[in-house]
Amino acid sequence: MATATDAETDTSAETLSATVIGASGFTGGELLRLLAGHPNFELAQATSREYANKTLGSVHPNLRGSDLRFSEPSDLESVDVLFAATPHGVSMEHIDSFREAADTVVDLSADFRLDTEAEYDEWYDGHSCPEYLDEAVYALPELTREELPGADLIAAGGCNATATLLGLSPLFDAGILFGSEQVVVDVKVGSSEGGASPSKASSHVERSGIVRPYAPTGHRHEAEIEGILGTSVSFSAHAVDMVRGASATCHVFPDSPVSKGDLWKAYREAYEDESFVRLVAGGGGVYRYPEPKAVAGTNYAEVGFELDPTNKRIVVFSAIDNLMKGSAGQAVHAANLALGFEETAGLEFEGLHPVGSP
Amino acid sequence: MATATDAETDTSAETLSATVIGASGFTGGELLRLLAGHPNFELAQATSREYANKTLGSVHPNLRGSDLRFSEPSDLESVDVLFAATPHGVSMEHIDSFREAADTVVDLSADFRLDTEAEYDEWYDGHSCPEYLDEAVYALPELTREELPGADLIAAGGCNATATLLGLSPLFDAGILFGSEQVVVDVKVGSSEGGASPSKASSHVERSGIVRPYAPTGHRHEAEIEGILGTSVSFSAHAVDMVRGASATCHVFPDSPVSKGDLWKAYREAYEDESFVRLVAGGGGVYRYPEPKAVAGTNYAEVGFELDPTNKRIVVFSAIDNLMKGSAGQAVHAANLALGFEETAGLEFEGLHPVGSP
Amino acid sequence: MATATDAETDTSAETLSATVIGASGFTGGELLRLLAGHPNFELAQATSREYANKTLGSVHPNLRGSDLRFSEPSDLESVDVLFAATPHGVSMEHIDSFREAADTVVDLSADFRLDTEAEYDEWYDGHSCPEYLDEAVYALPELTREELPGADLIAAGGCNATATLLGLSPLFDAGILFGSEQVVVDVKVGSSEGGASPSKASSHVERSGIVRPYAPTGHRHEAEIEGILGTSVSFSAHAVDMVRGASATCHVFPDSPVSKGDLWKAYREAYEDESFVRLVAGGGGVYRYPEPKAVAGTNYAEVGFELDPTNKRIVVFSAIDNLMKGSAGQAVHAANLALGFEETAGLEFEGLHPVGSP
Amino acid sequence: MATATDAETDTSAETLSATVIGASGFTGGELLRLLAGHPNFELAQATSREYANKTLGSVHPNLRGSDLRFSEPSDLESVDVLFAATPHGVSMEHIDSFREAADTVVDLSADFRLDTEAEYDEWYDGHSCPEYLDEAVYALPELTREELPGADLIAAGGCNATATLLGLSPLFDAGILFGSEQVVVDVKVGSSEGGASPSKASSHVERSGIVRPYAPTGHRHEAEIEGILGTSVSFSAHAVDMVRGASATCHVFPDSPVSKGDLWKAYREAYEDESFVRLVAGGGGVYRYPEPKAVAGTNYAEVGFELDPTNKRIVVFSAIDNLMKGSAGQAVHAANLALGFEETAGLEFEGLHPVGSP
Repeated sequence: MATATDAETDTSAETLSATVIGASGFTGGELLRLLAGHPNFELAQATSREYANKTLGSVHPNLRGSDLRFSEPSDLESVDVLFAATPHGVSMEHIDSFREAADTVVDLSADFRLDTEAEYDEWYDGHSCPEYLDEAVYALPELTREELPGADLIAAGGCNATATLLGLSPLFDAGILFGSEQVVVDVKVGSSEGGASPSKASSHVERSGIVRPYAPTGHRHEAEIEGILGTSVSFSAHAVDMVRGASATCHVFPDSPVSKGDLWKAYREAYEDESFVRLVAGGGGVYRYPEPKAVAGTNYAEVGFELDPTNKRIVVFSAIDNLMKGSAGQAVHAANLALGFEETAGLEFEGLHPVGSP
Repeated sequence: MATATDAETDTSAETLSATVIGASGFTGGELLRLLAGHPNFELAQATSREYANKTLGSVHPNLRGSDLRFSEPSDLESVDVLFAATPHGVSMEHIDSFREAADTVVDLSADFRLDTEAEYDEWYDGHSCPEYLDEAVYALPELTREELPGADLIAAGGCNATATLLGLSPLFDAGILFGSEQVVVDVKVGSSEGGASPSKASSHVERSGIVRPYAPTGHRHEAEIEGILGTSVSFSAHAVDMVRGASATCHVFPDSPVSKGDLWKAYREAYEDESFVRLVAGGGGVYRYPEPKAVAGTNYAEVGFELDPTNKRIVVFSAIDNLMKGSAGQAVHAANLALGFEETAGLEFEGLHPVGSP
Repeated sequence: MATATDAETDTSAETLSATVIGASGFTGGELLRLLAGHPNFELAQATSREYANKTLGSVHPNLRGSDLRFSEPSDLESVDVLFAATPHGVSMEHIDSFREAADTVVDLSADFRLDTEAEYDEWYDGHSCPEYLDEAVYALPELTREELPGADLIAAGGCNATATLLGLSPLFDAGILFGSEQVVVDVKVGSSEGGASPSKASSHVERSGIVRPYAPTGHRHEAEIEGILGTSVSFSAHAVDMVRGASATCHVFPDSPVSKGDLWKAYREAYEDESFVRLVAGGGGVYRYPEPKAVAGTNYAEVGFELDPTNKRIVVFSAIDNLMKGSAGQAVHAANLALGFEETAGLEFEGLHPVGSP
Repeated sequence: MATATDAETDTSAETLSATVIGASGFTGGELLRLLAGHPNFELAQATSREYANKTLGSVHPNLRGSDLRFSEPSDLESVDVLFAATPHGVSMEHIDSFREAADTVVDLSADFRLDTEAEYDEWYDGHSCPEYLDEAVYALPELTREELPGADLIAAGGCNATATLLGLSPLFDAGILFGSEQVVVDVKVGSSEGGASPSKASSHVERSGIVRPYAPTGHRHEAEIEGILGTSVSFSAHAVDMVRGASATCHVFPDSPVSKGDLWKAYREAYEDESFVRLVAGGGGVYRYPEPKAVAGTNYAEVGFELDPTNKRIVVFSAIDNLMKGSAGQAVHAANLALGFEETAGLEFEGLHPVGSP
């Protein structure tokens, strides 16, 4: 079995057992799909309270070929790695049993993303095990790669935060922004961000064809963003008519003049060695800037930008699949890095063209 | 016949003849529909080069009940009012024949929206009759109502500019913004903004389910907005999956603290007597903020806002149907005011619920 | 007040009071909209258990201009006409209080559509007041116009049955079909047919972009269809990605050869005097055959056909807006005829072009 | 190099060079994607007249990671296998140069699908090389598997024909249908079936949210279907709002009574050993019957059925991704069989859940 402290060894032929908690949800289903195609993981268990004893395919039609059935979350098997894809607040209640069941725990909820109890209390309602907040490693591999090898409690970054941070952080790293400037982040997201519980607002009738502001101020992902950038951003989200996808448009106003060359330099330095980030900035054809549709189903992020000399503004575009790069893909990517596997293992799908609504 | 200088008279029973130029396009079709249901207009002529001699219903299936056929644009009849719904650049070429054919000309293109040739040249390519720029009245009735009675050359405001200006102008009028602040306007629009000419990018295959930046900087509607507000805004547009609709999210940072009460006061003062503006700001239910879907097919604008104390930001939302309040409805509204008709005549449709993609 | 037996009188200037039961649902909301714009009705009451005391606009954003609030269904006012837009089974429980409250009751559910208790029991589960089944008049005005004047208990025809019957009945009336032939009816419907209660299957995530068979055999509307045509049809429904709309494709195989002229004759005779049926059969342009999108928001039905000599088949297309011609519009149309009003009163809206997903 | 006559050899480690003609189209793009992920093919050339010298990613954003550029179709390299994904009529003009360039030619158009010139002339307009019609092997592997090994001119079956034939052929094989019965096939298809050339009817504005009959009678795929089944079917297609997908609902009326057990037996016998067909017939959950959405992006077909005792009808449902199982996937599947590769090589993608519009 891989030991977290020994990730340097060649692990390419190794196979670890894995459990997915909350496997009937959208990100849980994506984890099942990714692990089934991963050379180093074997899916041992998939839990779901609601669908216990039913086949995976009865919920996720793309998994009809699997014989596995959902099991009760109370019967955890001992495995190497546990992925928790439950709603916020669940992981913190069960974190001890998760860690008892597995050497490595990757949590996809917000429960362990913030660093301190004070931060958590500011944005959420009381943490039941704040002692783990500091220990947990925040995983957005392009930005926190160094901390991942050997980590045994990982908090995968949130979807909107991921899109935003991938767009903005090169500007901070390159010294184009310093943290004192106004930063507006206007995000457009698909319906899968709302989770699998039905409601009137999420019904096809009411949600089709919309541009609907939600959490226009005070969105909780601001906390994660501030945690990484060290500065607050003005964040607003809108629901639009797609199922997968998060697209962040960041409007920033640097204090000093910036050229397009400066921007290319900043983004190339940030991402030229990254497997999952593509710079897409104003070429020809239909897809000139980052679009969620171009990365649907994949772990890729597209990042691009444009310069607005009139208003001394930089507009940055960042697009991801919220269930993949913004959740399940990010979790597997982080696990790959934590356990010493090939970084891209299980995440090679390049996406489809054409594709309808992602 | 109504004379422009005599608009005070009771005109409710009067009927004027009207021509629509470019009637096979999307806004042209909406004009046909509005004029057919208008108590004071009788549709005399609908021109289309491409569809001359075909029935209106062969292009616009909702007009299958009409016996009228498209005629060649070269054979203009003499009428009271002419609406020109042609692409940019066409009206300026034909303005003299338009004015010869009709006492009142309402142009829906950008040709006469700016005040001076210099402004025009900055954003477009050379004007063929700049002498009319000053004479033409810019019509966004909530903001330019006083100038409309008796006007005989009217330039209806553009869709994105209309959404933006309805959202922002109360903040300027109330002294909450002064023009020196950063103003970010992030707009989401439907596919009908692209017009009726097919292209690869506008095909159903490529355009479904997108969040696609277009004209992320340097959008020409910035000129109109600056013309009214007196200050530049940082404008970016995104194509999303709907057919009708323009939704503007304006992020502004006032220099002095503002309360929610201040905002309500500013917006109520601006719009409480307006027939076509509804304030929608954070009530309950599914539709808490302005949404294009809620105004699809109507001449209504919804305007709302939220306060972000953390970032000292005001977020303003404004939603319209780009073909109606952003074009054909605005043109009829302006004509009503110019000719002394009931302001809401022909524009009473309240919209549908539920509605799919608007 | 209008008496049902005196419908011959000129009633054009008359105004009757009306109640809508179940006014927060989709067809209830459409009834509110139609009655608000109807010259002969005044909306007195709109009931909703769930939204009692809330404004109409809090549920139906297109009715934000109204001051009326939903009231408890237990507090029925005395009115002239009551429209019941409740789920199946509710009207039969309350029919006595409905009839006590109003002289004329129009029910939009299936409760009174069938003629006998035996038929009802075959397709549904036990009727609580079978004595009214015979008395109730089935309203699909194009087919049952004669029975409507003076009727005081009206059962508006169901959406899928309406689309099917408008397509098929001219073939029976013209002696092209006799009832012994195989008749296949393949229907495609929008999500509003599922009603306003949220479920996993009706969520935007799961219902977007689908072609989903539902009730592929044994659909209850077969009973209504058989009741009118006198013969059984092979009916299957599919959910597709639109909100409004029902489109029936009927495949029939007449015993004797039929020409296109025969078909035109049959359909013209059936519908040439009808206000709400348009024959659309293979002209040019984009909209060559009936489409739900072309009638969205209206009380129109489009009917068309094509001949398949190879297979000795007639293909009939019929498209309606399920909430309008298939429900609320049909109910108002029936009430107009029952009460002696202008047939088209309140139903003049011709629809929009372009329109996104209806 | 693989020789067509020696397909029995172990070929799992072999790599053949491949060209895609018409690589900028939708099926061409899918071929590029599949070949890039195929263990036995190496993409040598991708031709496109329109995009020659541009990168693959400039047309297909999912291929941005590739360095290859489109080349002129006139400069064909010598390769092992050539896939032609051009519009109907192109392959027959160039078939000699295709065969000169490659040992094995797989054509995705209709040019070589029919057996005789007479059949071709009945449905299309004149064939330029009828001598190849007999030689070409029709590839719908589940039905024509035996003919594929060693074939060097392959005509991949059409999308709608594939969906129809997979649904119907087990009924003929099992002796439930004999060919004298009425067979109605009602098909719903996505916009990618229309190809990549933009038109008004295929624009997002006009094509969103539709149920639009097209080719309601006389669809050319009837010829292929008849060629395989030996009997004519009554076929009608409808365009609905999705990008990928073809869903066939077949309504058949067997002469003798049939039980559900008979149907299960017939379909299990037909498909239990097939890698790419899944029987989906009325289980629980949201996805109870075949749906295009459940197979989007994959080479799977879902087939299911329901019995209608009242009307003595069997309803068969069949769903595929038209670009995959209905075209590019089918072509690769056929090539795998022709060349002795693992049948599923390069076609293992299981699809996504959730997915928006496929």
